[in-house]
Amino acid sequence: MIINRRHFILSTAGAGAAVTAGSTIALAADGELPAYASFKDPDGLIIHTDRTMETRRGAQGGSITALEDLFVRNNLPTPPASVTDDPDAWTIAFEGVANPATLSLGELKSYGVESVPAVLQCSGNGRAFFAHETSGTQWSVGAAGNVIWTGVPLRSVIADLGGPVDSAKYLTGTGGEEIPQGLDPDTIQVERSVPLAAINTAILAYEVNGQPLPLAHGGPVRLVNPGYFGVNNVKYVNRVALTEAQSTAKIQQSGYRLREVGEGGAADQPSMWEMVVKSWITRPLLNASGRVVIEGVAMGGVDPVKSVEVSLDGGETWKEAPFTGPDLGRYAWRPFALVGDLQPGSYVVASRATDENGNTQPESFPPNHRGYGHNGWRAHAIDLVIT
Amino acid sequence: MIINRRHFILSTAGAGAAVTAGSTIALAADGELPAYASFKDPDGLIIHTDRTMETRRGAQGGSITALEDLFVRNNLPTPPASVTDDPDAWTIAFEGVANPATLSLGELKSYGVESVPAVLQCSGNGRAFFAHETSGTQWSVGAAGNVIWTGVPLRSVIADLGGPVDSAKYLTGTGGEEIPQGLDPDTIQVERSVPLAAINTAILAYEVNGQPLPLAHGGPVRLVNPGYFGVNNVKYVNRVALTEAQSTAKIQQSGYRLREVGEGGAADQPSMWEMVVKSWITRPLLNASGRVVIEGVAMGGVDPVKSVEVSLDGGETWKEAPFTGPDLGRYAWRPFALVGDLQPGSYVVASRATDENGNTQPESFPPNHRGYGHNGWRAHAIDLVIT
Repeated sequence: MIINRRHFILSTAGAGAAVTAGSTIALAADGELPAYASFKDPDGLIIHTDRTMETRRGAQGGSITALEDLFVRNNLPTPPASVTDDPDAWTIAFEGVANPATLSLGELKSYGVESVPAVLQCSGNGRAFFAHETSGTQWSVGAAGNVIWTGVPLRSVIADLGGPVDSAKYLTGTGGEEIPQGLDPDTIQVERSVPLAAINTAILAYEVNGQPLPLAHGGPVRLVNPGYFGVNNVKYVNRVALTEAQSTAKIQQSGYRLREVGEGGAADQPSMWEMVVKSWITRPLLNASGRVVIEGVAMGGVDPVKSVEVSLDGGETWKEAPFTGPDLGRYAWRPFALVGDLQPGSYVVASRATDENGNTQPESFPPNHRGYGHNGWRAHAIDLVIT
Repeated sequence: MIINRRHFILSTAGAGAAVTAGSTIALAADGELPAYASFKDPDGLIIHTDRTMETRRGAQGGSITALEDLFVRNNLPTPPASVTDDPDAWTIAFEGVANPATLSLGELKSYGVESVPAVLQCSGNGRAFFAHETSGTQWSVGAAGNVIWTGVPLRSVIADLGGPVDSAKYLTGTGGEEIPQGLDPDTIQVERSVPLAAINTAILAYEVNGQPLPLAHGGPVRLVNPGYFGVNNVKYVNRVALTEAQSTAKIQQSGYRLREVGEGGAADQPSMWEMVVKSWITRPLLNASGRVVIEGVAMGGVDPVKSVEVSLDGGETWKEAPFTGPDLGRYAWRPFALVGDLQPGSYVVASRATDENGNTQPESFPPNHRGYGHNGWRAHAIDLVIT
């Protein structure tokens, strides 16, 4: 049996992808892991900046994303590493409940524990696939990972504090990053509000993948809202408030809003809250006989993913691909794989997932000012050449 | 709110446990992580020897065991670390199929991919809980972990090689450790046979928890038989044979056989193959008000775990404990937690799991020569003192 490791030439499709490749190379040359992310595997990451690191597409397959490979996207400089020295001493102020209280993580741990596998995905994941110019990190598919969060169920804490006040409409979490003196906190603070119903699924996570939550991912404790885009999973959370209005912070009021290209952000535009159905190819493999294993991951967002199809001809024909791993629950992604013998030639390989409500990924996703939320299957396709 | 971190005094119950504690302290003093396990977290482990490291009970909770905390038990010195430098070059000989072949891992990857969460548990896990004297590492509960294996489904390879020969009755895997010259391989080689049906669930695992399989856990590739005790999951596997007879190796013929105390091992005794229903408490937590979160893990072995009960009074009364994490499939364990307000006093906390066939953990487990397979709930109970 003769093996030719170069049977495949892999490239991402579309003009947007070309931009990614360019910026990746330019930045990787001087990219180094910052101290707070020194546990990361540089081979598994594209280091855009010291606060933005993307998982390489080929490192994404499988049921669980190793922490070493999980993307990093920090809006602000991290708190000092010392905050993770004694996680139980970290405190969170609870407001908007009948009996407001400030509780340490050590105290909070007595309210129970829950593990939730969930996709963590940046709102801008897939930004590189938009054809129009967008500001912000040019993420391809790697600002997403599937991890298992473990922490305190927020609903238990809220129930013990007497429940939400009557006026409560939002769950608001505040990040504990230090705000430089003289700055209006609203301009830079990471404070996000999501609809109140999220209190039923939120957890105050202090572990991820069975390890203490690292500083790079929000440790000692992060407000995890499963099914919601990354920004709503507030790191270093030091305040949880059930509020009548959404946060006044810029990141809530005008940031992370889906809007037409050229428009300014405003509070009446859709906020980047719930994630939707999406999938992408992560690994083409091959052997001498032309046997190919097309691998990828498929997620449902807030709803469970039901199925995924793969096309080898750019969407002309589709074939359902079996999932290769266990069902880790509604918020998790599932890896899939399709094994086939392919003749030499060129293939455009696409994947298209459907959730349990029957929502299927669209062929294309409309341009929007900040390049958020791309789940169009065509732009996520890859070109394969089998020789 | 006043916090007293010393509300609990935790000790393992029974005479066997006292033996464990003694040996642990004696060995931990001179215990250091060997080079091949340098990625391990020493705080999460009890280092018995340089080939036997146990996960601390308090580090076991949660859906997934972090690799840093996963136990290590090697029968032989590991192969040189260089074997993991180029995993795809590792070869496995397939015998007992219509068309025998030797295939590299690179070639094998073209046969498909599958992820399987499964408990890895040493046959001797719980040995410390036997009251009679047993030779071998005095494992408490920590020779077990729950991980996600990813690899090639063995059935795909076998099908492609023409299927099993007619005479095949066993799946036999051979470990690639070097056998010193002059020794009869049968005396020390790690070669294990399991019933042929296992070919339908076995995978040739090259990743664990989303990372390349480390040498310490059998990398570059391990024959994983989900639901089977650890020894049947052959590390550094370099031969997979579908055989008419079980391996002639000592580890198969007389080793890992369940037998009366004082009896020698023999091939007509039950082999340590399929695992059975088991559970144990991993974390008591508390707060000032006496609120306690009793955490533990429950597994079904080869059958799915259905439910788990917790007793606070040494087995007089039981209460079903909800699972706190997702169902990762039939071979995985599930964490559970029971939250309650406890009055000051002494408690004997036990857990008792039931699988989907209605098999429940026994109160006690009979003595056996090597101290294998303990799943009795009483010996696994813990004493809690709430002050």
